[in-house]
Amino acid sequence: MTQLIGGIEAGGTKFVCAVGTGPDDIRDEARFPTTTPEETIAQAIAFFQRQPEPVTAIGIGSFGPVDPNPKSPTFGFITTTPKPYWANVDLVGQIRQAIPVPIAFDTDVNAAAYGEYRWGAAQGLDSCLYLTIGTGIGGGGVINGHLMHGLVHPEIGHIFLPHDRTVDPFPGHCPFHGDCWEGLASGPAIKARWGQAAETLSEDHPAWDLEATYIAYGLVNLITTVSPQRIILGGGVMGQERIFTLVRQRVQALLNNYVQHPAIIREIAAYIVPPGLGNRAGVLGSMALTHLLTR
Amino acid sequence: MTQLIGGIEAGGTKFVCAVGTGPDDIRDEARFPTTTPEETIAQAIAFFQRQPEPVTAIGIGSFGPVDPNPKSPTFGFITTTPKPYWANVDLVGQIRQAIPVPIAFDTDVNAAAYGEYRWGAAQGLDSCLYLTIGTGIGGGGVINGHLMHGLVHPEIGHIFLPHDRTVDPFPGHCPFHGDCWEGLASGPAIKARWGQAAETLSEDHPAWDLEATYIAYGLVNLITTVSPQRIILGGGVMGQERIFTLVRQRVQALLNNYVQHPAIIREIAAYIVPPGLGNRAGVLGSMALTHLLTR
Repeated sequence: MTQLIGGIEAGGTKFVCAVGTGPDDIRDEARFPTTTPEETIAQAIAFFQRQPEPVTAIGIGSFGPVDPNPKSPTFGFITTTPKPYWANVDLVGQIRQAIPVPIAFDTDVNAAAYGEYRWGAAQGLDSCLYLTIGTGIGGGGVINGHLMHGLVHPEIGHIFLPHDRTVDPFPGHCPFHGDCWEGLASGPAIKARWGQAAETLSEDHPAWDLEATYIAYGLVNLITTVSPQRIILGGGVMGQERIFTLVRQRVQALLNNYVQHPAIIREIAAYIVPPGLGNRAGVLGSMALTHLLTR
Repeated sequence: MTQLIGGIEAGGTKFVCAVGTGPDDIRDEARFPTTTPEETIAQAIAFFQRQPEPVTAIGIGSFGPVDPNPKSPTFGFITTTPKPYWANVDLVGQIRQAIPVPIAFDTDVNAAAYGEYRWGAAQGLDSCLYLTIGTGIGGGGVINGHLMHGLVHPEIGHIFLPHDRTVDPFPGHCPFHGDCWEGLASGPAIKARWGQAAETLSEDHPAWDLEATYIAYGLVNLITTVSPQRIILGGGVMGQERIFTLVRQRVQALLNNYVQHPAIIREIAAYIVPPGLGNRAGVLGSMALTHLLTR
């Protein structure tokens, strides 16, 4: 009998739950808005409880910051989030109490990176980074086949980049850091700077040129730091093909032939790519996290 | 009988060779300037050939860029360096031809990071970053117990940072990127900006305040990207205790309590530290690389 696994993409605006064995075999799926922990976690539990067959394991990829360290007393918690009601919530503990199976837990973006590594755009590689550029900027990754962990987990949206205020006087939108990457280039930053949402900007609006510059600066920093074998860009801001083209050109220009690898010099369209799993990277990646459980 | 191992720190200005079993048992050591590959590699070979007992393995940590991928046809080469005579030099091949033992090979900074992880300031941790801030800025690291590799290897000195030209009109010193981290904050950048070498600047010279700002921006980007459990700073520019103090304060101020971990909030003096192996981090790290050889 095939073992069913469950996935929960615990996002700041919505939860997505799925049951199946992999990307080509999803038996059921549900999405609902993230309201209070009581209500939303209860909906996730109810989704798994109403399945005809029980799951043998669950993977959770959560908005954060989270505690992904299995040795820590607060493993499985969403920790210091400014999101109302959700700080210091024992997400894993509450799910496990209702559904007593092994639970894998990581950030939403590490989950998506792992899903792309196992089943998506980074299959067959040893390393990749996954970034989402939308409501915020977040990133996770796989290096040498392992998810990126250390002191805590990556918070890639909060790197600092060149910000030429003579070109872009917008002061930045991050409540912690002002003009960090997320503060300059997330969806809300675009809206605050130009007075309209990214999705409503025409293809030739000057916003895209500036946006591509900030995304390229961030990617160059990641390439020179982590040297990933592929970079996957998801999220609402990356919805157009044109922004990918602009970003790739700008990355090559900024690196200026310093990283002499064909993936960057000649084949950058296969190096900086959209998610292979599309908008299911999060929930499928959460399912994929269960492969990391030692059984 | 204890097995002797060799280490070669192949630096752009000098080579350091050592033979022994570990940091507390170095049997012989030699340093000589890096001239031409013919001359310098011959000196390294002669050092090992004149030892009374043969080494069973050699680790090499080299200036770069290098090819550290054992599956690549150019494994063990120094690749595209602008250093005269040294581009496309088969360093490992030449050493192995004279001394037919297993050879481990990586960047000088990955070697130093691995030495600190095994024997120095990062013992007992799963991750660390090692940075040298001197003639250039370079960095390597261990994540989840593995050295950082991917497409190629980290080139951390070439990240881009905020550069406020109203405060610091210096255009930057990197031939590839102008005002990248190395272009703004390496030893030669300090000298070009202030007209005197870093080592000759008094402790209260304004250069140090600006230097601490650039180092802190770089470290914040590394903390939010890689989330290392410790950061080790070596190199000529880090020779004073005061610069460490300034950098730690600046990192805390820039992060602004976003990364809520006691290592940063309360114990940063134990988080951003000098090398535990002192100025032997490079050659001892090169020796330590031999532990990664599969025998």
